[in-house]
Order: sequence, then structure tokens, then C-alpha cells
Amino acid sequence: MIYVTIWNEFVHEKIHDEVKAVYPEGIHTALAEGLSGEGFAIRTATLDEPEHGLTEEVLNSTDVLIWWGHMAHDRVSDEITQKVAQRVQQGMGLVVLHSGHFSKPFKALMGTSCDLKWREVGEQEILWNVNPSHPIAHGVNASIILAHEEMYGEFFDIPEPDELVFISNFEGGEVFRSGCTFRRGEGKIFYFRPGHETYPTYYNKEILRVIANGVNWANPVHTLKPVFGNSEPIRAINKGILV
Amino acid sequence: MIYVTIWNEFVHEKIHDEVKAVYPEGIHTALAEGLSGEGFAIRTATLDEPEHGLTEEVLNSTDVLIWWGHMAHDRVSDEITQKVAQRVQQGMGLVVLHSGHFSKPFKALMGTSCDLKWREVGEQEILWNVNPSHPIAHGVNASIILAHEEMYGEFFDIPEPDELVFISNFEGGEVFRSGCTFRRGEGKIFYFRPGHETYPTYYNKEILRVIANGVNWANPVHTLKPVFGNSEPIRAINKGILV
Amino acid sequence: MIYVTIWNEFVHEKIHDEVKAVYPEGIHTALAEGLSGEGFAIRTATLDEPEHGLTEEVLNSTDVLIWWGHMAHDRVSDEITQKVAQRVQQGMGLVVLHSGHFSKPFKALMGTSCDLKWREVGEQEILWNVNPSHPIAHGVNASIILAHEEMYGEFFDIPEPDELVFISNFEGGEVFRSGCTFRRGEGKIFYFRPGHETYPTYYNKEILRVIANGVNWANPVHTLKPVFGNSEPIRAINKGILV
Amino acid sequence: MIYVTIWNEFVHEKIHDEVKAVYPEGIHTALAEGLSGEGFAIRTATLDEPEHGLTEEVLNSTDVLIWWGHMAHDRVSDEITQKVAQRVQQGMGLVVLHSGHFSKPFKALMGTSCDLKWREVGEQEILWNVNPSHPIAHGVNASIILAHEEMYGEFFDIPEPDELVFISNFEGGEVFRSGCTFRRGEGKIFYFRPGHETYPTYYNKEILRVIANGVNWANPVHTLKPVFGNSEPIRAINKGILV
Repeated sequence: MIYVTIWNEFVHEKIHDEVKAVYPEGIHTALAEGLSGEGFAIRTATLDEPEHGLTEEVLNSTDVLIWWGHMAHDRVSDEITQKVAQRVQQGMGLVVLHSGHFSKPFKALMGTSCDLKWREVGEQEILWNVNPSHPIAHGVNASIILAHEEMYGEFFDIPEPDELVFISNFEGGEVFRSGCTFRRGEGKIFYFRPGHETYPTYYNKEILRVIANGVNWANPVHTLKPVFGNSEPIRAINKGILV
Repeated sequence: MIYVTIWNEFVHEKIHDEVKAVYPEGIHTALAEGLSGEGFAIRTATLDEPEHGLTEEVLNSTDVLIWWGHMAHDRVSDEITQKVAQRVQQGMGLVVLHSGHFSKPFKALMGTSCDLKWREVGEQEILWNVNPSHPIAHGVNASIILAHEEMYGEFFDIPEPDELVFISNFEGGEVFRSGCTFRRGEGKIFYFRPGHETYPTYYNKEILRVIANGVNWANPVHTLKPVFGNSEPIRAINKGILV
Repeated sequence: MIYVTIWNEFVHEKIHDEVKAVYPEGIHTALAEGLSGEGFAIRTATLDEPEHGLTEEVLNSTDVLIWWGHMAHDRVSDEITQKVAQRVQQGMGLVVLHSGHFSKPFKALMGTSCDLKWREVGEQEILWNVNPSHPIAHGVNASIILAHEEMYGEFFDIPEPDELVFISNFEGGEVFRSGCTFRRGEGKIFYFRPGHETYPTYYNKEILRVIANGVNWANPVHTLKPVFGNSEPIRAINKGILV
Repeated sequence: MIYVTIWNEFVHEKIHDEVKAVYPEGIHTALAEGLSGEGFAIRTATLDEPEHGLTEEVLNSTDVLIWWGHMAHDRVSDEITQKVAQRVQQGMGLVVLHSGHFSKPFKALMGTSCDLKWREVGEQEILWNVNPSHPIAHGVNASIILAHEEMYGEFFDIPEPDELVFISNFEGGEVFRSGCTFRRGEGKIFYFRPGHETYPTYYNKEILRVIANGVNWANPVHTLKPVFGNSEPIRAINKGILV
């Protein structure tokens, strides 16, 4: 059983009618419903809850955290940011969606500005699978067509991804590295681009398939914890006396 | 001084008027002229010359080989293919252009089918720089727009590139990893997509800039040659007797 | 159920008493027994069988092929080599063990010489896990100590691995990239260094754990097959007429 | 001309006689002298200078910053840390030496703990070149032997390096990824392991050769600055109306 916590800042859906119309119960609820058949144990958490819903108890019992945020990144406390980043470094999986590229935890884990180009005119996006043997592409077609989405364009200021799974083509002419994996410490991170708040992207079966695959991939591997610090030698040391 | 050999199969330009109109002296000659101000020592070689113009003397005195081929891949002999691949493994740089993706030397060095999608309707291609600190992107704008090109689309069946420098957006909706680097042995390989034979792509200053950067990047680093085979220990061996 | 075929050239064990003493029924049989509790459907195949035991029927019903060869690499036919490489490109997993680094299928898939340094004096090898969140490291300690092994040393002439999982330290002073992953087409390849024929390495529980993890990781992901060739546009083409 | 600033915390050399004996004028001065024939314009800066010697004027006129720190990492201000990290993201090269793995700027740019194993008994270290075509390996032998060094051992908690150039073998049995490159934004980072303060490592000609190569490699490529934010389309948008 994979324990999944879906975090959503849950602000747009309360104050913008256009967004409320698409996600009346919030993006987190739509995602929880969309992933309900995957066999995950799912909880949700939002910005306005105490500690943003990410208490130590919640974080310590989460295998994979899904993150959606946009207009309120700066309202996430530095303390929770640090706890999330540290839990990832200690093994918790992290699936960062869309505008989460600018979230504090993602930026702390990347070490870059995570900036990009954007345009909001509802153009067509086509995601192409460029890594067909990757588990995140399991059961996914060669391309996913989204009739209307926000554009994100390169240069996307991230470290070179460990693995590139999807690249998007936008109608206006841009490209974007839309499905990227990163390892940090014992934790795995999957960034997945689609999901502007005014489009029904998170009801799309193929998009949900990719997110579910991402959760399965990011689920921690149970290795023994790395040991750091002062270490005894395994083999006798002659202090550099050569043969 | 970098010694560059430009290899072109030089068949289209002799038999297709449409191509001859664009490259009357052959693609190799257009490239040699386009790169003439770069300070390289440039030779050309073509399929119909003895040993395809790639004698041992030529290969051994070439720092970087540029390769363009398309309709006559199977007329390149296995012997020359093997010599080219081996010279790359021993340090010679290789810049593979456009339809050279299906050339015998490139396939031998990749270990994959190198297959892809394609369409020839003269649509617009936009190449985006996704690696701004890479020397192959030196002096290149964020994007290069080609009004008319052949489309190449993903999935492009290559190994994961060591570095990805350009991604193309095509008008019909596809994307392509258009600028890719690979290391094989002591040699460096740069694959660069543009250059269909019916368009004046190799007269484009930005495209020539990228090819010249690719030559400079692929130029061999003069390290001592790796030593292989049976080796004496550097340190005394106690045959696994532990501390 | 993962269908595993263990291929062994099975020559040393017939003609060298020292090897026969360690692997009386052959390395393939020892591996089959060692992996018998993993829930795999296991077959074996050897060099002297018709088509080296790798008929189309066998290859087409194999999810993951394990390969051990050493003194008889050149007796593997080019035809079978090509079939194995092609099946990997089409999705079959491949786990290459020890001296299989010089096997024809591995070299064809790498595009390099796959050469290395070596020494056979029975020194201590310590493998270190450098990728703790990788599924191939699942349940493996920070290090694996082998009291006696053949030394393989860098430079190991392979392409930059997609992922590096283990690095070995040898008593005589060398290092080696001992656990490496590569993707080729739809297929996944895991190279794992240990296993000289005169040592009981393939009875070691930790080594068997890594090989089993490698099989699970290399098991094909069932994506739809990539489509190549001439493609219709998804979006209307204005032939480069700009905004 | 490459403008190099060598930063050293310069604390050990003032208070520990053992260190003072090796580097009487400080590690920064030894490095500046060792690199004096490379054609760089070299300045030094130390912790106790105002703004740690890293004023905006200094940072803005530095092409490549070399960093050595150890016992006083926490005395580096958060403000200077952020300025250094930001300058790297904007193109400045960074060469991080030895115990600089735990420096604030390096950790901020990596997004990991950067922790490791260590032992200080003066054992032998052998660095092996695993990337012979890399410019950082230019003119360097297959291995560099240091008679006495501090041990650093895996797991080294860094992101997967973009390129791995050196791996160390330590006499006591450990391995370490000793030469690693990373790109962050427009900037390039080279981490190089050797250089404990009690050994004369920075007088070793081969070690100085690698550091000089690292500076040349990390020197910024002058591309046009990436543009971020709201962008006009290049191509007309039909809002997803398909062909």
C-alpha cells in the first residue's frame, strides 16, 4: 500500500469563479477522486490547515507527496518547506505538478530559479513520450493531446533531469521538458507540467495515468539508510607504502 | 588548428534538379564555404571517391568528421563504416547532420535503430536552446526559426543523450531532440537535426554557427591513451585478509 | 510472472577442473537455483545447443535474458548476436554479467570497445552502493564485500551509463563502475561486474539479490510500440507563415 | 582572460601549527601561486574580510570562483551565500574543493545534504580518470596517486552528477566520486575532492592541472541571457482546432 498525500494550496478555487466551475471541491479533491482506483491510501492537505496540513505525523506517514500550488507560494512557511525537502532527501517521493515548479520545496531541491516562459491563451498542447521503456510511460500512448492549456516554454531553468520522459509541443511554437525525474538523497522527484487551474486537465484519463505512474515510481525503495560520518577502514592501511 | 573533413554522399545533388538548384556544388561544398571563416583546415570527401574518400591517411589526419548522407547509406562499405566508428572510439570527433541519423557509422556507435517519424511538406521548425551554458550554444539565440524544413518527430530511437542542447517544435505538432551529444571511447559525437536537401538550411548563419560550435566541442582532448589489459597492482595485496 | 532465460557459454566448467569444482553443473544452473525463490519462470540456454539455445521461440518468450560468457565470445554467431540485440531494442531486458562485457551482443548495443583493465590474483573487492533510491539497490547493504575476485579496472570503455548504481574498490588500488544501467530502444540493460568463474560469487546471497533486482528492473514496461516513418500532421500547417 | 577569485576561509592556517607548516600563507595563496602560469587573472578573498571579500563588485567581475572551506562554514553569511548561488545561476563558474562539499553555497546549489563518510589517518588515495575525452581530464594521466590524504567515502549525498570525471580508491577500502560536474542555470560547477589541509596536495602538479582544467571548463559561455515570463506566440494559434 502506498500512502499518498495530495497537497493543494486551494486558493484559486475559492476566489475565482472560472476555477471554481472546473474544480468546485478543489484540485486536490479532483485528483483524489481521479486516483481513487489505483489502490493508494490517499489523504489531502491544504495551505490554510494548521502547518499547511503537513504535520510531522502526516509527513512521516507519507510515501509520496503530490504538490499543486500557484498564487500563494510565498505563504508556505520556510519551516514546512524545509521539512518537506528534508523528508524527500530521506526517501519520500514527490510529484510536483504544473505551477508547482515555482514552489519553495521544489526550488530548494533543485538549486536553480525554476523560471520559464508562459502564455495563457488556451492553446493546444501535445505531450510526446521520449522514453518508452520508463515505468512512468507505462500504458501511455505515444502522445497525449490537450485541447486547451497554458503554455510553458523553454528555457526551463532546472538542473539537467536524470531522465526525460515527456516533451511538449505548444501551438504557438514553444517546446517544454514536461516530464522530468530527479533523485535527491534517498528520494525521487517527478515533475509533470500539465494542469492549469482553468482547464479540466486533471479529469483527463491519460494525465491521471501518468500521475499514478509517477506515484508508483516515486514510492520509496526500502534500502538500509546511508551511514555518514567517521568510518573505520575495511582493509588494513599501510599509509601509502607502495608495492 | 582543427582538421575537419566534410563527408557527403553527394547523390541527390547530381540527380535531383530541385536539390541541385539549392546546392549546385553539393552540400559538402556549401558547408565548406559556410565554415571557411572559422579557422579550420577543411577537406571534403564523397561516396564515389576510392574508399569513399576516407582512406586511412585521411581518417588519421582528421580531428573532426562531418557526415551528411541519405539515399545511399547502404552503399557505404562495412569496412569504411568500421574504420570510421573505430577512429571515433579512438578520439576523432563526429558531427552527424540530419538524415545521417540512419548512416551506418552512427547506428554502429549508438547501438539502436535510430528510427524516427518524418514528413516532407516544408513546414516551419523552431529549435529551442535548452542548455544555455553548453559550448555548442555559444553565441546562439534562445531559438532558431527555419521557415521550411522536413519534420523529424519523436520517438527518436537513440540512447539517452549525454547532453541535450536543442529541442525542435514542428508546425504539425511534433517535437524532436535536435541537438544531442554522446561520448564513445575517447571520441565525442554531436548529432544536429536540420538540413533537408531541398532547403537552403546550410546557408543559414545560425545553423552554421551551431555546426562550427559542434566542431570545436568535438575536437579531441589530448589525454594519454587509455591502457587496457592485464595490469600490475599499485598497492600490496593481502588476498582479502581483513583488518 | 517474469520469463527469464539464463544464457551461459558453459565451456570453462567442462574443461577446467578449478571451475568445475565451483560450478559442477555450470554457472547457469547455479544462477537458476540461486534465483529459484524469486518467482521467476526460469529457463537456461548454452552455446552448444542449436542456435545457442536462443531460437526465435525462446527469445520471443523471454522477458529478461541473463548473459555470462568469457572464452568463447567469438563462437556466438553474428546471426544470434543480431537477434539478441534486436530483441533488446524491442523491449527484452538484458542482464550482462562479468566477462559478458566483451560479448558480441553487449558490444553491439554499446557502440564502444567495452575494454578494461584486469588482474587475476584473487584479491578483495568491495562494491559500494552509490544510488540508494534505485530499485536495483533494494534491500542491499551500503557495501558488499567479496573476499576473492578478479580485478576489473577503469578506464572501462562504455558509454556514460544512464544510471550508476555500484562502484567497486579493489585491493590493488583500482576502481570500477560495477553496476550500470542503459536503455536501448524499448529495452533496458543492466551490467553487473562480479562473477569470475573460479570463485563462488554466484552463491553469495547479496550478489543474487542484486541480480534478482536487476531482472525485476529490466522487465519490459508494456507501452504501446513506438510508431516510425511517414506521419500525418496533428495540427494544420500554414507552411511557415508567421503571426 | 579568465578572472578567477580564490576564496578560502583561512582559519586552520592561523590556528593549527600542523596546517600552518604546510600552507604558511594560506591555501588560497598556495593555489594562486600554483595556478600563476595558467594565464588567469587571479584574486583571493577570505572569510574575515568585509562581506567575506565577496562584494558585488568582486562577484560581478569574477568568471570562476574557487571555494575552500571547512571548520567555519556556518560563519559564511546567508546573504553572501545567496549572492554566490545566484551569480552561479547567472553564469559564474564555481570550482568547489574538498571540504567545500559542506559549504553553504554548494548545498544550496545541490538541494541535498552533501554528507559523506570520512577518516583522517593519512592513507593513500588513487584517483582514476573515467572520462578521458572530457576537457577537465586534458593532459592528466590515467590515475593520480596521492601518498597521504583524508578519506571521503560513498554514499556521497549529491544529485547524480551531469558528468563523472574521477573516481577515487582509498586504501581502507572506500570509493568516492571525486570529480563531478553540474550545471545550474547558466553556470557550471566542478566539485574536486582532494585537498585536506594537513597535506601538501595543492602543491601537486597533477592536482593543479585538474583545477586549472576545471577553471577553463567552468568559464562562462557567452550566450544571450535566457528570457523568462509572459511571451508572445511565434506562430498563429487556432486554439486547438484540429486539422
